[in-house]
Amino acid sequence: VKPSSLSHLIALDWGTSVLRAYLLGEDGVVLEERSRPWGIMHLPEGGFVGALDAISGDWLSDAPGLSIIACGMVGSTQGWREAPYVPCPAGRDALEAGLLTVEVTPGRRLHIVPGVRRDGDPPDVMRGEETQVVGALTHSTHLAARARLIMPGTHSKWVRVEDGHIVDFQTYMTGELFALLKDHSILGRPARNAASSTDAESEIAFKRGVSAVRERSSTGAFELLFSARSLVLMTQLKAEHSLDYLSGLLVGEELRCALAIGSSGLASSTGEPMALIGDPALCTRYLLAMSVFGLNAVPTIQDTARRGLWQLARQAGHCADD
Amino acid sequence: VKPSSLSHLIALDWGTSVLRAYLLGEDGVVLEERSRPWGIMHLPEGGFVGALDAISGDWLSDAPGLSIIACGMVGSTQGWREAPYVPCPAGRDALEAGLLTVEVTPGRRLHIVPGVRRDGDPPDVMRGEETQVVGALTHSTHLAARARLIMPGTHSKWVRVEDGHIVDFQTYMTGELFALLKDHSILGRPARNAASSTDAESEIAFKRGVSAVRERSSTGAFELLFSARSLVLMTQLKAEHSLDYLSGLLVGEELRCALAIGSSGLASSTGEPMALIGDPALCTRYLLAMSVFGLNAVPTIQDTARRGLWQLARQAGHCADD
Repeated sequence: VKPSSLSHLIALDWGTSVLRAYLLGEDGVVLEERSRPWGIMHLPEGGFVGALDAISGDWLSDAPGLSIIACGMVGSTQGWREAPYVPCPAGRDALEAGLLTVEVTPGRRLHIVPGVRRDGDPPDVMRGEETQVVGALTHSTHLAARARLIMPGTHSKWVRVEDGHIVDFQTYMTGELFALLKDHSILGRPARNAASSTDAESEIAFKRGVSAVRERSSTGAFELLFSARSLVLMTQLKAEHSLDYLSGLLVGEELRCALAIGSSGLASSTGEPMALIGDPALCTRYLLAMSVFGLNAVPTIQDTARRGLWQLARQAGHCADD
Repeated sequence: VKPSSLSHLIALDWGTSVLRAYLLGEDGVVLEERSRPWGIMHLPEGGFVGALDAISGDWLSDAPGLSIIACGMVGSTQGWREAPYVPCPAGRDALEAGLLTVEVTPGRRLHIVPGVRRDGDPPDVMRGEETQVVGALTHSTHLAARARLIMPGTHSKWVRVEDGHIVDFQTYMTGELFALLKDHSILGRPARNAASSTDAESEIAFKRGVSAVRERSSTGAFELLFSARSLVLMTQLKAEHSLDYLSGLLVGEELRCALAIGSSGLASSTGEPMALIGDPALCTRYLLAMSVFGLNAVPTIQDTARRGLWQLARQAGHCADD
């Protein structure tokens, strides 16, 4: 049996810095997977079309009628074509209805999943995470009724789900702030030239940062940032641990804000199911931080973008043999 | 009368990026003032000695016996020589006692003002601001009994003074965070290519940021940072105003944290006198932000480093003709 006869869909997770492509078979099983550093801000020669050809040209030669679906920044104003945001509450039906179809070449179509916006003062937006939510709810169906999905990253998203719909969400720039402070601020300097530390020491310093924020429930990390320097100057923190401590401050601040539900504090006390979605190493760090906040046994879910893309394409009738 | 016969002291405000030198006469009057981009991280050829010669060599030729006093990062571990931190509570006597004397050449002495540390968990440190506090209290003697001195900047300091002593202080990395986000983050991108805005529009956007933080008294700016982008994407904020809004978020967060005295909120309600110390343009922005928090008629004080250097040198008997 040739792979081409088995392939049902090409799914693309196309973000700012990376392009991931999946050749999917029956029931969304992965036949082949590729990754290139061709985010929308780093396209190869030939731009979007060139990138698509280079990453999936052979798959399409073998199965010319295959549909292509994509999510992420490829649908932003800086992307291939803008797929306008769908408003909250947004479920699978609204996302399917919002699919934007681009005619790549005659007869070859790319379907772009729209982002989601949450109106309010201020509003918030996501693009790519909506597909991950669909994937997570497909994988863990019990979360669809009511849950809080946490997606750590450059721009972390905390998503509230009810009845299978994204009803609310909030962005925290945790990952981007950490990278900025590490690479460009006075806080990163001591650690840049320091010795490396063990995993255990690194974990202790990280938890120390999380705890420090938790203890300042009304002010938070902003007034603690400089302590990543003053503690080193006063020899109360080793230079090689200062970035772990800083990371703890920022992840701690994300948790402090996200869990600040009035004075009652922890979301766990509301009995709302939670799940972490994303890169395993990052999820491990967040689990550690959540344990400092008294949140334990939070499950993690992987490969949500791919699952969500399959689900949306299937629902829209874009999978072969549907 | 030649200036040399009038000169009593050379005073140096020597920070990370700038070296300011003052030739001071009787009662600390300014005879001449110079500024060079020779902070301790950007020294000219010849290092510290070369910088000192280049900025004040002619003054010293005219009056070879003149004392030199310096404050700021020149006394840090990366500076000329480390002047160890004096602990809180720290007044003029402790700072004078902590002066570190460097023999530049035989018979020529440089006296470096020590920094101040506040022990605690976490601790905090200042270096340069202690001299500004001395200068501010010399200028506005009524503040010595009890006051809160606010020094906006790269690393803003909020200093509590009692009986002429620095009893407590807190650092906020407001200025550095703004510069990082402006120059390196996704938030700075739209504004970099945008049209310029009027002062009035800029002020409105700044106050909008401050207000947004004030309204989130328990969480603060961390969960609002991304709104500097989402508001632009949703066309609720013009790209050219997004940095003013961001600046408002950060200054607002500094105020939110610094004024979070239990549930009572505002420091003004405690009747504690306050004063702003620093660059006039920056003080104007802070006054605007403080007005959003209901704090009005806060006085500003200028030239505090120079005044403080004179005061400390005089007290130590380092001024000519003392």
